[in-house]
Amino acid sequence: MSGKLYGLGLGPGDPELITLKALNIIKRSSVIAYPAPDDGESFARSIVAEHIDESQLEIPIVIPMRRERYPAQQVFDEACKKIRGHLISGSDVVVLCEGDPFFYGSFMYVFERLQDEFECEIVPGISSIMASSSVLQRPMAARNESVIIIPAPLDDEEILRRMAVAQSIIFIKVGRHLARIRSLIESQGLLDKAGYVERATLPNQKSMPLSDFNEETAPYFSILSIYKGDEPWPLKK
Amino acid sequence: MSGKLYGLGLGPGDPELITLKALNIIKRSSVIAYPAPDDGESFARSIVAEHIDESQLEIPIVIPMRRERYPAQQVFDEACKKIRGHLISGSDVVVLCEGDPFFYGSFMYVFERLQDEFECEIVPGISSIMASSSVLQRPMAARNESVIIIPAPLDDEEILRRMAVAQSIIFIKVGRHLARIRSLIESQGLLDKAGYVERATLPNQKSMPLSDFNEETAPYFSILSIYKGDEPWPLKK
Repeated sequence: MSGKLYGLGLGPGDPELITLKALNIIKRSSVIAYPAPDDGESFARSIVAEHIDESQLEIPIVIPMRRERYPAQQVFDEACKKIRGHLISGSDVVVLCEGDPFFYGSFMYVFERLQDEFECEIVPGISSIMASSSVLQRPMAARNESVIIIPAPLDDEEILRRMAVAQSIIFIKVGRHLARIRSLIESQGLLDKAGYVERATLPNQKSMPLSDFNEETAPYFSILSIYKGDEPWPLKK
Repeated sequence: MSGKLYGLGLGPGDPELITLKALNIIKRSSVIAYPAPDDGESFARSIVAEHIDESQLEIPIVIPMRRERYPAQQVFDEACKKIRGHLISGSDVVVLCEGDPFFYGSFMYVFERLQDEFECEIVPGISSIMASSSVLQRPMAARNESVIIIPAPLDDEEILRRMAVAQSIIFIKVGRHLARIRSLIESQGLLDKAGYVERATLPNQKSMPLSDFNEETAPYFSILSIYKGDEPWPLKK
């Protein structure tokens, strides 16, 4: 009988923000895969490093970080070949995922290759957008407000069209687009309603009103959160 | 010294989907508050019932479920008066929240009343929208796609305007609006891309393609998830 494939959400980075379910599944698994850069530590693995022991087989899915085009199909083809082997031989395989596996996560590239052949279970995780609201100490949305999530690499026109329809606007993948997105936010008169969060829930987390953050770029894992709804939710310094 | 106020996200309902952090905070807290209906069990409390013991003081925040207008300001005023008393006397107070406290959660009504007086910590939780994607076994979004979250009580024109701008569309608070929302989805040619999820991760969970769900209304805690992006993610039966 084949093993089962798990996509395991591990949350935004604080090791205490993993779920009991994720912990239990990691502890009983013999094969653990995770995305990893070609230089340095895997972020997903680092969240649960204390729960992994030497008896567990690890499969790093090494993603070349210098390439603009991502993901490399070949990387996932090769990783899935290894994972398939373990599943066929009857071992469950856990794929560690930062945040939530199905919310802009690279796990979907594993899932789409293996879902037809094997039983899969996705364990949801806390996404960084939820963590960012907690860190900013400002609710994301209430009542009948809408939230829109906008990847910063989109062009200006696409972004403005999306910003217009929701009371709560979350920019993800901000990185090198920061200065341009800040201009767009200013052009809509929303700068004083925008919060900046970097590495939410990690020891080196930063958060502040965007108007106090005067850099031109930001880490890839940074988020801008704008609230233009009716509630009296000021940004804290 | 005053106590600290915690807004504690407990996830979508599966007791295993609480975080280690939420569990640790509950175990060391002497005062636990939670929203509760005037008739029946508190959903938030039920998620962590096994971790609460008799020595802990409980403060149910009883919300009259028969009233269309919600929340009743008076209910939160009175609950916060009690909570304030414990905080002033130096006890930490934990407010249990289903899902994530700052994502359409009633905790914000406690927070807005007490945030200026007391230290607050928000512990994020897994929202039901993340859980729904896991249950449907279909990713919510990838790459530079946008996600929009739309409360079903909005009027048709508002809904169509919001549906137009994103590749991934999540309807929340579906309940008695189901038939109308289904018509709107059909009018946009998206019925075969819509999934229905009810009580995600609970024992009585239901999930299926919307085209297979022929009811006129749904429970309040149900979600519709539409994916019209470019990825080959079919809905499973």
